[in-house]
Amino acid sequence: LRQRYRATIEYDGTQYYGFQRQRSAPTIQESIEQALASLAGEPVRITGAGRTDTGVHALGQVISFDLHWPARHGVAALQRALNANLPEDIVVLQLTEAPDGFHPRFDARQRTYHYLICNTPVRRPLCRKRCWHVSRPLDVDLMNQAAALLVGTHDFGTFGRPPKGENTIRQVYQAFWWRNGDRLRFEITANAFLYRMVRSLVGSLKMVGAGGWTVEQFRDAFEAGQRAHSATAAPACGLYLVSVNYEL
Amino acid sequence: LRQRYRATIEYDGTQYYGFQRQRSAPTIQESIEQALASLAGEPVRITGAGRTDTGVHALGQVISFDLHWPARHGVAALQRALNANLPEDIVVLQLTEAPDGFHPRFDARQRTYHYLICNTPVRRPLCRKRCWHVSRPLDVDLMNQAAALLVGTHDFGTFGRPPKGENTIRQVYQAFWWRNGDRLRFEITANAFLYRMVRSLVGSLKMVGAGGWTVEQFRDAFEAGQRAHSATAAPACGLYLVSVNYEL
Repeated sequence: LRQRYRATIEYDGTQYYGFQRQRSAPTIQESIEQALASLAGEPVRITGAGRTDTGVHALGQVISFDLHWPARHGVAALQRALNANLPEDIVVLQLTEAPDGFHPRFDARQRTYHYLICNTPVRRPLCRKRCWHVSRPLDVDLMNQAAALLVGTHDFGTFGRPPKGENTIRQVYQAFWWRNGDRLRFEITANAFLYRMVRSLVGSLKMVGAGGWTVEQFRDAFEAGQRAHSATAAPACGLYLVSVNYEL
Repeated sequence: LRQRYRATIEYDGTQYYGFQRQRSAPTIQESIEQALASLAGEPVRITGAGRTDTGVHALGQVISFDLHWPARHGVAALQRALNANLPEDIVVLQLTEAPDGFHPRFDARQRTYHYLICNTPVRRPLCRKRCWHVSRPLDVDLMNQAAALLVGTHDFGTFGRPPKGENTIRQVYQAFWWRNGDRLRFEITANAFLYRMVRSLVGSLKMVGAGGWTVEQFRDAFEAGQRAHSATAAPACGLYLVSVNYEL
């Protein structure tokens, strides 16, 4: 008899071709499934809350899997054993038993992503692969004027593609830039995201901050509802899946 | 005619066998000298303020070198050209002309190092190679009681070897641990440091924080003045050369 588990995962996405298993490239899913298989002595499939792209990081990805694990060993021992089997760039932060019906993607009510920009004239080696280096000074007030337009229920077709069979309407609860010295952090929470949505938003908001677009031009692009109106997507290395919320 | 330059350097030390040039292993010095040589069309030697070990990082290493660079191009263009030639884990943050007699090591009056600890029950992939992961909870108040003993002019023979011909007396101006959630930062400023001194200090202060040593046992080890009395040195990946001061 197998128990369903829910795990919160942190990973450094730099060395992976994204979360989702692929035929011939290393992925987060594959690494976790290998660690589980070596504990279980049989193949184990995991399901993730979100499919992060190549190079995207996670501080709070949520996954589920079914496993036979002797109850007397306890969940804490399972977590330790799993972490001992995982590579150094992936870890299980939390592990709990979950109801049989739990599904990390379908049950999720909100997702939060962060995006980090290092806004310095000269590139900074110690935060490469952890943020986007933008040398041109960014006006965070303008970026927040544009970000405020995102909050609410809107058509986000400009900024991403929907999964098959879905529309491009999403509800954004929060979208805000924080500046701490020369570091900028964008925090965005929505019921769900389109493919590429956060990176396209960040690329477009950066256009506003750098003076390439006015807030009105951002609004026009947003209202156009077509991918062609987005600015170039921001690089993957600055993006973090921070948390997935299951209760509202 | 060559001009002497002074440069402030940031680097991620992970991929290097320390600062100082070696026969057959990549070093920071070698990478910078290669970048300079390709600009100068001839070999250029650099001098550094401190010889960081394998895996140690710098936010403010200071170097000097002599170079013929057409005055009409300007120092800013030299910095840009140099940064374009450096690998992505090394950068010149600041570059200025310096007097002929300037020597980054002999002229330095103070050095500041930081040491980062990630004090979480579970290892954190996104800060690996940037800090020391210590899972046992650390008592920062006790660590600061021990660190306070370091301030002043003392024999630091327990914690490091001196360069040839020097003694083990050093003057520490500041030694303090800051806690921010589960992140600890040790800041230490001294006139100069012995080899391995910060890492041996951090390893010994961590013993106090983890309850392995009392503050009195730390004091006894310190007063013994012999390397054998130090706890195991902390790993290199948490150590940063933050700044070098030339005026007091």
